[in-house]
Amino acid sequence: MSETDVFQQHISRQYDHELLDVRGRIMTLGGLVEAQVESAVAALSSGDVELARKVIEDDYKVNSLEVAIDEECTQILALRQPTARDLRLIVGIIKAIADLERIGDEAKRIAYQAIDLAGHFPKRNQLSELERLAESVRAMLRKALDAFARMDVDASIQVVKDDRQIDRQYEGIMRQQITYMMEDARSIPTSLDIMWSARSLERIGDRSCNLCEYVIYYTTGKNIRHVSIEQIAQELQES
Amino acid sequence: MSETDVFQQHISRQYDHELLDVRGRIMTLGGLVEAQVESAVAALSSGDVELARKVIEDDYKVNSLEVAIDEECTQILALRQPTARDLRLIVGIIKAIADLERIGDEAKRIAYQAIDLAGHFPKRNQLSELERLAESVRAMLRKALDAFARMDVDASIQVVKDDRQIDRQYEGIMRQQITYMMEDARSIPTSLDIMWSARSLERIGDRSCNLCEYVIYYTTGKNIRHVSIEQIAQELQES
Repeated sequence: MSETDVFQQHISRQYDHELLDVRGRIMTLGGLVEAQVESAVAALSSGDVELARKVIEDDYKVNSLEVAIDEECTQILALRQPTARDLRLIVGIIKAIADLERIGDEAKRIAYQAIDLAGHFPKRNQLSELERLAESVRAMLRKALDAFARMDVDASIQVVKDDRQIDRQYEGIMRQQITYMMEDARSIPTSLDIMWSARSLERIGDRSCNLCEYVIYYTTGKNIRHVSIEQIAQELQES
Repeated sequence: MSETDVFQQHISRQYDHELLDVRGRIMTLGGLVEAQVESAVAALSSGDVELARKVIEDDYKVNSLEVAIDEECTQILALRQPTARDLRLIVGIIKAIADLERIGDEAKRIAYQAIDLAGHFPKRNQLSELERLAESVRAMLRKALDAFARMDVDASIQVVKDDRQIDRQYEGIMRQQITYMMEDARSIPTSLDIMWSARSLERIGDRSCNLCEYVIYYTTGKNIRHVSIEQIAQELQES
């Protein structure tokens, strides 16, 4: 092996190591964001104001990790000048961390609603639908992170399909709360808190879908945003 | 001038041309998005269901232009392998077009609210605050696009400061509509439409701020997200 080859291999190994490192850090960010969503929803269910405050305080951890990974990616682009799949991976990561950071923002919004809601003492059964939606959304986020970690196209398509179920659950909560509000004006503040929280959860579902779209983009080179999932599945099957 | 120099200059000119082209296209996208917001708000004010439907239909134009610019940026990264400021510009553009596309989504959401609202016949004075918020947000988006076109840091800082005014207007509308809902249950559907529209407008304000943050990142190399605007202004003055 010539000296140049050895050097080339060394560079390449270091580069592989950098790519692995950045993929590891995005999983750390994903885990952190998932924990924030879990705590925010727990605070909402239990009326635990202290826990809600902790979610709001801890949002800076999500933000700093996102900025750090973003800088790392820009460094890799500048120094390694990746092409093809490696380039798509880095561009995909830059976009994915922006979505994760905004899932963190939605968790913070849910935490604010939890603090507000704790002052209104909602009836238990008013929260049960919201808790079911929260459970579906958390499962979806977890699957999206798994699919991203393994760059698994099939799992990604499944997550995008699951989003329709989330949308139906969300619409159900909205209709239900409007009925409660019309029946009893005293329930308006509680219903609004529940509606805003449901909206945040629905957005977390949307952003989990985005993660899966980057997986499909990375693996197939196809930008599937704004294309129906059936069309994607069909095309992938044919190719 | 040696042959290599001439060639180098040629490459460089073509590259400059590509950068100019991509900056031009982002302005086209910005103009399109601005027009969508304008039409959505006009549909809301006038109860023009046809106009609202046109906004919803035209959203695909925003989406396709965003995908095209995104691909153009990835091509430039792969072929030109830019570094330093050029790299920050391309990464900034990739992020900015994602924000513009989502401003387009918010315009579409406002258009859906406009169709719903047209069925409830709101009292004129119920819309006046919302129209004022819409005017502020549209002005802010326009300033943000101008600042982005000229990569103007001072103008960008001003836009980020203006966002506080938008937040205050938004909070005022929310409080006002809750009062209306509590006073008269019949106003609940109208008030909810107004609240959702106000929320979309407030989000458009947030995304306009994002554009300005990319300008500051491009020009100074500083990632100012999650940092107070006073701190930024201070640091830039000192440097």
